[in-house]
Amino acid sequence: MIIDCDVHHARRKEVDLAPYLPEPWRSELLKYGERKMDSGILNEGGFRWDSIPPNGGPAGSDPDFLREQLLDKYNYSYALLTGSGYHISAIPDPDYAQAICSAYNDHSIEHWLPKDKRFKGVIMVAPQDPHLAAREIERLGDHPDMVMVAMSSTSRIPFGNRFYYPIYEAAQRKGLPIGVHTGQSNAMFAQASPTPAGVARNYLEWHSCVPQIYMGHLASIILEGVFERFPRLKFVLIEGGFDWLPHLMWRMDGRFKGLRQQAPWLKRLPSEYIADHVRLTTQPWPDPKKEEHLLHIFDMMDAENILMFASDYPHWDFDEPSVLPKKLSETARKKILHDNAAEFFNLK
Amino acid sequence: MIIDCDVHHARRKEVDLAPYLPEPWRSELLKYGERKMDSGILNEGGFRWDSIPPNGGPAGSDPDFLREQLLDKYNYSYALLTGSGYHISAIPDPDYAQAICSAYNDHSIEHWLPKDKRFKGVIMVAPQDPHLAAREIERLGDHPDMVMVAMSSTSRIPFGNRFYYPIYEAAQRKGLPIGVHTGQSNAMFAQASPTPAGVARNYLEWHSCVPQIYMGHLASIILEGVFERFPRLKFVLIEGGFDWLPHLMWRMDGRFKGLRQQAPWLKRLPSEYIADHVRLTTQPWPDPKKEEHLLHIFDMMDAENILMFASDYPHWDFDEPSVLPKKLSETARKKILHDNAAEFFNLK
Repeated sequence: MIIDCDVHHARRKEVDLAPYLPEPWRSELLKYGERKMDSGILNEGGFRWDSIPPNGGPAGSDPDFLREQLLDKYNYSYALLTGSGYHISAIPDPDYAQAICSAYNDHSIEHWLPKDKRFKGVIMVAPQDPHLAAREIERLGDHPDMVMVAMSSTSRIPFGNRFYYPIYEAAQRKGLPIGVHTGQSNAMFAQASPTPAGVARNYLEWHSCVPQIYMGHLASIILEGVFERFPRLKFVLIEGGFDWLPHLMWRMDGRFKGLRQQAPWLKRLPSEYIADHVRLTTQPWPDPKKEEHLLHIFDMMDAENILMFASDYPHWDFDEPSVLPKKLSETARKKILHDNAAEFFNLK
Repeated sequence: MIIDCDVHHARRKEVDLAPYLPEPWRSELLKYGERKMDSGILNEGGFRWDSIPPNGGPAGSDPDFLREQLLDKYNYSYALLTGSGYHISAIPDPDYAQAICSAYNDHSIEHWLPKDKRFKGVIMVAPQDPHLAAREIERLGDHPDMVMVAMSSTSRIPFGNRFYYPIYEAAQRKGLPIGVHTGQSNAMFAQASPTPAGVARNYLEWHSCVPQIYMGHLASIILEGVFERFPRLKFVLIEGGFDWLPHLMWRMDGRFKGLRQQAPWLKRLPSEYIADHVRLTTQPWPDPKKEEHLLHIFDMMDAENILMFASDYPHWDFDEPSVLPKKLSETARKKILHDNAAEFFNLK
């Protein structure tokens, strides 16, 4: 029994969004297509070559083929349909960005969720206007198959900032965790660069640096006291790796012990908020020289209770459930593949 | 026997630089003082309260007091005087920035290096104009007590970019390693933010995120193939922590295996360049819940051969040599406290 926390379903055509878009964006979409936010680097990873549906359309766009190639093959209990469009938080126009997100959501609700009980949906929001995002959470938060709010990791401002409180307030009220998913590599306009050293040259370098975006957000969320302000709020960090977590916990705790006057709102050590509030997904799997090294990292971060499996289907670096270390205990394997996500998303 | 790779000596007064500055900067310094690059956040860490010299002046400005409080007390073989002024790479004017660095260097050569054989100096350069920086390395690279080129981690462009090749060519030619030291928190003008998520709120959050800057630079240096282009070049990453290194090695190797067409110049796995070319200093020490966790990290990163001790005197988070784990082997302790740096800096 497996729950996959990151499955990228797709629309067959851009114009499939049109019925869900109000004017003036419906006409715009039909005339010009979706607005793009390119980064000047080539995503040479792309998709699994075998994920293109036999009946045509992009990878991940055929519910029947996706079900067969993924859910049936690996005996999934549930698959979180995290969609596509995580460039959206870098689009300068907040009204457009949220309108597109809402259309994504309505399209999923109509064309995907009814097709298999194992499909679960996410409420995509554009953080450019947290009040619009909160309204979207309010609109769809009671849908029984929408189990998470999803935001791109690309940001103007780190996620601990009070700018985002309307989103957090709405998510907490609806009892929905927030999933942060890797976003567009180009965030130049957003006053943040893909790495704090500057702009990465290509996809290889950018992809090697993606976890840093998650470290920055997680430090901000914890140190700004988001979990004291929203005690029932939870986050899951998707597609950002996980083996960096011990480092960040130790770094925050050490700094906090010397500088706690700068965060008087914290009632625990920074690392101690993670168990109650934060989960990380497994993909992409790290590549240590020895498996035992990873088991040591598992121990340091209490991976048995913090990690949740994700395949990132149909992307090039898709992970099978068998990616977990062979020496992992059966209890830990079951928790990471299923139980942690079942509890986190309240999936019975 | 100990070598300390990061000791911040200081000038007593800003005007002490005046004799080493050409016009128009000498007159400017006397009239206005040094140009600042503030970040809007308060460095509430500051200095060890007991590091202010009894005869007055800022912390680290009295060679006799520094010698007594640090070198004599801990029985140092050598102390690398890394100075102050690592905001300089964020100053927009490249001529000014390098002139100030050159004045720093000349001041150290005249006022510090002759005072104790254990003092060793660094050639500070401003990467804003790599040709000017290379000229400074040429000017001072044969001085017997100048053992490293020093650059701030604050950057416009990640350090793997060919923009920096003049610096690397000069450093390799003079047989000097390059030390990257934590720089100014504000790099807004530089198209990079202190974290890839955006600008940190305060010193606690910024300091928790500092290692990300090093991850970004190291990924860039390795993946861009700097060590294939400059096979004798070495880097030491100073004051950026170290327990993140296993994560970055595994991440780069995993990504490279799927995307090696994006870095065809690499002849080894990314992580395999580290042993020959990269060292990290120990300070600030991480704060794990169990010491054995850190020993596992040591094993993963071959810390015995990669780490070099640094105290960061006289800063607030100064580490004594006793910070090393008690269970560390005597061989590893000796290498980290002394031998690795003796070899790296060619100190007999």
